Amino acid sequence: MDVLIVIDMLNDFIHGALKTDEALKTVGPASRVVEIFHNKNLPVIYACDSHNKYDFEMKLWGEHAMKNSWGSKIIDELKLNPGDFIIEKHFYSAFHDTNLDAILNYLNAGRLFLIGLDADICVRHTTADAFYLGYETIIIKDAVAARIDKNWEDYYKRVYGSKIITLNDLEESIKN
Amino acid sequence: MDVLIVIDMLNDFIHGALKTDEALKTVGPASRVVEIFHNKNLPVIYACDSHNKYDFEMKLWGEHAMKNSWGSKIIDELKLNPGDFIIEKHFYSAFHDTNLDAILNYLNAGRLFLIGLDADICVRHTTADAFYLGYETIIIKDAVAARIDKNWEDYYKRVYGSKIITLNDLEESIKN
Amino acid sequence: MDVLIVIDMLNDFIHGALKTDEALKTVGPASRVVEIFHNKNLPVIYACDSHNKYDFEMKLWGEHAMKNSWGSKIIDELKLNPGDFIIEKHFYSAFHDTNLDAILNYLNAGRLFLIGLDADICVRHTTADAFYLGYETIIIKDAVAARIDKNWEDYYKRVYGSKIITLNDLEESIKN
Amino acid sequence: MDVLIVIDMLNDFIHGALKTDEALKTVGPASRVVEIFHNKNLPVIYACDSHNKYDFEMKLWGEHAMKNSWGSKIIDELKLNPGDFIIEKHFYSAFHDTNLDAILNYLNAGRLFLIGLDADICVRHTTADAFYLGYETIIIKDAVAARIDKNWEDYYKRVYGSKIITLNDLEESIKN
Repeated sequence: MDVLIVIDMLNDFIHGALKTDEALKTVGPASRVVEIFHNKNLPVIYACDSHNKYDFEMKLWGEHAMKNSWGSKIIDELKLNPGDFIIEKHFYSAFHDTNLDAILNYLNAGRLFLIGLDADICVRHTTADAFYLGYETIIIKDAVAARIDKNWEDYYKRVYGSKIITLNDLEESIKN
Repeated sequence: MDVLIVIDMLNDFIHGALKTDEALKTVGPASRVVEIFHNKNLPVIYACDSHNKYDFEMKLWGEHAMKNSWGSKIIDELKLNPGDFIIEKHFYSAFHDTNLDAILNYLNAGRLFLIGLDADICVRHTTADAFYLGYETIIIKDAVAARIDKNWEDYYKRVYGSKIITLNDLEESIKN
Repeated sequence: MDVLIVIDMLNDFIHGALKTDEALKTVGPASRVVEIFHNKNLPVIYACDSHNKYDFEMKLWGEHAMKNSWGSKIIDELKLNPGDFIIEKHFYSAFHDTNLDAILNYLNAGRLFLIGLDADICVRHTTADAFYLGYETIIIKDAVAARIDKNWEDYYKRVYGSKIITLNDLEESIKN
Repeated sequence: MDVLIVIDMLNDFIHGALKTDEALKTVGPASRVVEIFHNKNLPVIYACDSHNKYDFEMKLWGEHAMKNSWGSKIIDELKLNPGDFIIEKHFYSAFHDTNLDAILNYLNAGRLFLIGLDADICVRHTTADAFYLGYETIIIKDAVAARIDKNWEDYYKRVYGSKIITLNDLEESIKN
């Protein structure tokens, strides 16, 4: 069963402390991707930074997506279903020190579709852990944005064996 | 630096769904242990079950310590300081899929003192992971209770190299 | 698909440094279990202590199953197939710091059958990690031996939801 | 205490299946770095791919650094000391499914110096895990080579807070 993982689509990454123009452009496509997974009754998991002051990242990025703050809330533009899963994370990877792997085992997950921010940071580190665990990963490129390494596509393909698709290709790619 | 880890001293384990008489008796000693660590300005970390309906444990123990419920709240009898750390956990071990190891690295933790519930389940699984990570573990026996294996002391000593002490021994055992 | 995990059936645990009479009695049943899995073409994974002098366990158990020594070799009484998997481990759990989870994902493993030594130490810690990962665990009691906690059966059932079966029940329990 | 981690300086990466011209140029500087750590009696850890046919990477990179083959041997140009640590790894990161974290805890490691191959793959994934664990990382740029992302320096600094130094700066940077 295909599963969607939505990474860090939070106020601080779209509208706040760490916002970028490129990130803002992912909102429309990301909303559409979530809608498609909901329509097919496939699982949607939101992995969301939820930082404490003592998290190592504070030294590098300053305060952002602080636990229980506005900045760590999922943007209103995404419409959540009651059955969606929400994971709080403290690190770049949505797997690191979270129960994402347990949820995927519980769901008997097959392939992982990934969208969100940033293609070259949190999405990439999540993809690395997914690769270690043997998951096939598919990135929907209209719904991700990169911050530092703009040539991330080739890297994903060669290093993680990921597929890169567009929003247009999504519906025919998904399997129940 | 010595660090205190307080495990599952929550309403459901003391006053609710999974309460035992033995658990209730740990409240007084546990409060005193927390007070001693606070007085010495040493770190106190509460590791607290915070379950979702899909957590594997539900099948075994029924609903308990559900996220955001009264049952998952730390008992009022323990007096928290603003600087205390609180970790939500989904599994027996306080290390599993949590950032406890990251916090201990951040604190440059030395020895780990453990109290709470149950000596033979969550405290034991936490001690196992602490042993894997190279930590020396010290269990304060007045402030733990066992549910199934009442002969847990010998096991801890032989399998994890733990020290078992009493509340009376605590103050002279702690090192800044 | 059912998978067999054979834990620490090594010279040092059966014939050497850490041998016990109870362990010796598991050799016959364990050989038969391996044979049954081979006959059904189901995967067999051996998880084997392979210690370095700096491993934390040295302080507790003394030198045993040292990497590349006779003591860390699988006992001759077990007949290996070329397709069997062998994992070197440094800790009690066969999952800890090994690629067992990756192999299980690769095999698309269903239930895990566990045999070997000791029911209350390495098999138990392996079962704990299997439980965390969502695996159903089945212990074949003729083919395990306990060192400290002889009442391990009740603990497995209540804490990990394991099934305990006998060698006689095995053939009808296995699923391809 | 500063620790040196030498990644994948193996026959297959320098002289065999996955060799590159850039990798060959790191041999001289890497040998010198190892020598400097040996002279100061600081720990040196070699993390070495040691692949099985079923490792996920086979699909992406083909057979390389296969367990027990010439390709997985550390190149002769590096002079090992008897006290050096050698870790076999199955994934990009030297931490993933290995006991590197346990060794670093055992050594009471402070900062980690990293050299080897590739700056943008195995060294980068190792650095990511080191960052998660709270380690300060220092990359010696003459002794690493990149395969895909040649602009790795800026990424390391911003994402992991790493320091990038040259071989010339090394001796004055190391702390006992």
